[in-house]
Amino acid sequence: MSIKTPITVAYGDGIGPEIMQATLDILQAADAQIKPEVIEVGEKVYLQGYTSGIPDQAWESLKRTKVLLKGPITTPQGGGYKSLNVTLRKTLGLFANVRPCVSYAPYVPTQFPHIDLVIIRENEEDLYAGIEHRQTDEVYQCLKIISRPGCEQIIRYAFEYAQKFNRKKVTCLSKDNIMKMTDGLFHRIFNEIAAQYPDIEHDHLIIDIGTALIASQPERFDVVVTLNLYGDIISDVAAQIVGSVGLAGSANIGNRMAMFEAIHGSAPDIAGKNIANPSGLLNAAVQMLVHINQPETATLVENAWLKTLEDGVHTGDIYSSTYSKQKVGTQAFAAAVIERLGQTPSHFKPANYRPGAYAKIECYGDQYQTHSKKELVGVDIFIDNSAEIPAAQLAAKLKQLGGPLELIVISSRGLKIWPDSTIDFPYLRHCCCRFQSSKDSKQLKTIHHTDILKLLSGFNELGLDVIKTENLYTFDGQLGFTLAQGQ
Amino acid sequence: MSIKTPITVAYGDGIGPEIMQATLDILQAADAQIKPEVIEVGEKVYLQGYTSGIPDQAWESLKRTKVLLKGPITTPQGGGYKSLNVTLRKTLGLFANVRPCVSYAPYVPTQFPHIDLVIIRENEEDLYAGIEHRQTDEVYQCLKIISRPGCEQIIRYAFEYAQKFNRKKVTCLSKDNIMKMTDGLFHRIFNEIAAQYPDIEHDHLIIDIGTALIASQPERFDVVVTLNLYGDIISDVAAQIVGSVGLAGSANIGNRMAMFEAIHGSAPDIAGKNIANPSGLLNAAVQMLVHINQPETATLVENAWLKTLEDGVHTGDIYSSTYSKQKVGTQAFAAAVIERLGQTPSHFKPANYRPGAYAKIECYGDQYQTHSKKELVGVDIFIDNSAEIPAAQLAAKLKQLGGPLELIVISSRGLKIWPDSTIDFPYLRHCCCRFQSSKDSKQLKTIHHTDILKLLSGFNELGLDVIKTENLYTFDGQLGFTLAQGQ
Repeated sequence: MSIKTPITVAYGDGIGPEIMQATLDILQAADAQIKPEVIEVGEKVYLQGYTSGIPDQAWESLKRTKVLLKGPITTPQGGGYKSLNVTLRKTLGLFANVRPCVSYAPYVPTQFPHIDLVIIRENEEDLYAGIEHRQTDEVYQCLKIISRPGCEQIIRYAFEYAQKFNRKKVTCLSKDNIMKMTDGLFHRIFNEIAAQYPDIEHDHLIIDIGTALIASQPERFDVVVTLNLYGDIISDVAAQIVGSVGLAGSANIGNRMAMFEAIHGSAPDIAGKNIANPSGLLNAAVQMLVHINQPETATLVENAWLKTLEDGVHTGDIYSSTYSKQKVGTQAFAAAVIERLGQTPSHFKPANYRPGAYAKIECYGDQYQTHSKKELVGVDIFIDNSAEIPAAQLAAKLKQLGGPLELIVISSRGLKIWPDSTIDFPYLRHCCCRFQSSKDSKQLKTIHHTDILKLLSGFNELGLDVIKTENLYTFDGQLGFTLAQGQ
Repeated sequence: MSIKTPITVAYGDGIGPEIMQATLDILQAADAQIKPEVIEVGEKVYLQGYTSGIPDQAWESLKRTKVLLKGPITTPQGGGYKSLNVTLRKTLGLFANVRPCVSYAPYVPTQFPHIDLVIIRENEEDLYAGIEHRQTDEVYQCLKIISRPGCEQIIRYAFEYAQKFNRKKVTCLSKDNIMKMTDGLFHRIFNEIAAQYPDIEHDHLIIDIGTALIASQPERFDVVVTLNLYGDIISDVAAQIVGSVGLAGSANIGNRMAMFEAIHGSAPDIAGKNIANPSGLLNAAVQMLVHINQPETATLVENAWLKTLEDGVHTGDIYSSTYSKQKVGTQAFAAAVIERLGQTPSHFKPANYRPGAYAKIECYGDQYQTHSKKELVGVDIFIDNSAEIPAAQLAAKLKQLGGPLELIVISSRGLKIWPDSTIDFPYLRHCCCRFQSSKDSKQLKTIHHTDILKLLSGFNELGLDVIKTENLYTFDGQLGFTLAQGQ
């Protein structure tokens, strides 16, 4: 390879500059064909007035190189500063968070010496879209949004990843026994896509059991794919039991851009002391080398690093009298890795990223276009019932409203409170009034948006305080909404 | 105590009848002052056509005794059968799931021999309200609903529990760094209520780190209080690492009703063989005895059970050649416990539920009434933009609509896509159009519901497919909604 690949580099805050320098020194010594362009992001930039933590000229470099190697960032408290990671993920469409979790026993103590799993976490959807509304004095809501393209993209990525990296199994985690529509979609698409990869095993676990098994039997997992919130939780569980928060790197991958970083923070308390462990960022850089199609260099660097680890050359964070031979600082550790370039580990399994097999994984979510017949058949009208009008009285009022829509059920927090409620003391202050074009869910007729508007006018005239609406649809005749508990 | 307390008893399915009989035999031998009324719930009842799994006459007993001791249930697959537990929790207002997790090392192998924590999980709200809507061909939504009374109730319960059971610390888990309004409310109320219990320590952890610590350092936790979904996940993690899924009981507590059960399932594969371990249900029964104010009997039973365990009299599920002396069946195990009534354990800390200190905990969530000034200041109108009209074009159309409301931002999955978007390929098919009475969030004026209706008519006339609305309010001048990423 003669043309160097331009990459954008951000040194970051705290220990960032030291560990980035150590990492770049190793990459240079390994003759990585990269041309770093340094940008400034993070604390200084925040304090200059960029609430996103990233100045305009940095964007320009990012959009050109499409690859970012990033040191840890300190987000200043208060002042409306936004997490740079969230900004980058969202605006650059980095839909996949890829987090390898590997045991390095006995050098890093863990009860599970054979963990070698990869968590692939959806990065753009779920509750983390952060769409929240306060609806009454007492009630707050957050929207969990899941889309078919979002699910397809991350799940296909997981299988492509498994294929390219010679992994045997992909496990899906969801809570589809409770969230039958949102998590149900994720599980269903997982099954659809798994069928296209017959050589890769697949299974599904409910998230509560799945998390418990990651905590207690992590060695049974290979590739794990899951939704944003669950992925956040299991990533921390896996990192903790592996015991290697200081050693792990992570990638955030989009179709047009990718970012690589250590999973640890900027550790300002030890900054500038030449004692920080650069391994997390170095492992992220190895992921980056594979991504930019320099697998031989990735192999060279990872093997030298593994050899350094098993030779007992350790920074203070993993130093132990039993397994360490030499306690070194950041720069000396980098020098030790450089010294071992070309060597292979004997205790650990050597890395061997095969040339040619690691082209960039691109996954688009709209390959499977659904075009179902969508029909508007009703509406859920939510009210702030601060006067605590009893459900039966509310129903009697609402029955006066004419039109093609009929009041079917009133519910509170998903629980039916009218008709035929057996609940002695329902929570009345937040009610959902469900109107359908027919009582019988099999006989639903199409209505018009104007029917809903008339209904809403009626609520208004009755002095009822509408806080939100959710339209009810059928898709190819299938109900596009859940029934209230007891409905 | 001379008057026997009536309790409702459901034997349940699978191993339910055997372990319930063993439990009741022990309670009787301990002279528990209870008068069991047997009801039939579960598989047989489902198959008789009760989709809720519980017949009407059973309700009658429950509502009278207000206490249910319940064996495990088999919910038949398919056929629209609803989980009996969910039905009971929701219709009886059982807002608190109380799950003690205790190590019984070395008799039950665990890497953590000193776990003694209690998880108190909110049971009625959160995503588990199960309110889901499919909004477009591709997009599904689930509502996460959190209320102030719901939070107050569970958090106060946790502190009352800690006080009565001599616990030292309550830890709150939430994800309020991301969900600042919903989880933020939970955390804020936790701080409010913690201040009323100065003798009890309190702290808060983000759920991802909290789950990782429960998995890796469970011995640092005492009482843990959290939201429904998180509680579900950490309950499984804790049960798994404690290694005692077969030994743990659980309570579901409401202000007017309580249910006690083992945490394991009905294990149909070993039903009727007299080999099942009745300890989970027995521990649930101990919780019940405390609840109905028979602490001496609870102490007697728990100590006899602990003594049996440390004497090495074990059922097959926990039998080991190292720590067991005698392998027994269900009935023989019950007989061994009965034999030891009056004895106290020496390896384990003896139970000692003090008389008088365990009155029923009642917690109502409406002690703190908020009456803020709520003003309607805008609306989020969500559309199914299946034609993928670009955001700028959409904005130009919407600008034509007059009225006191101004288009401020268009977002997709929480991410700003108009104006001044830096995103190259936004997801356009699901858009949120935010209208406010002023661009400046500090200058918001009150609008009327009719203004929103006019706007919705306008959308309709433009041929835009509205799928839902979320009104925007201020409460005492504070914004009741989050800003889109980049807004």
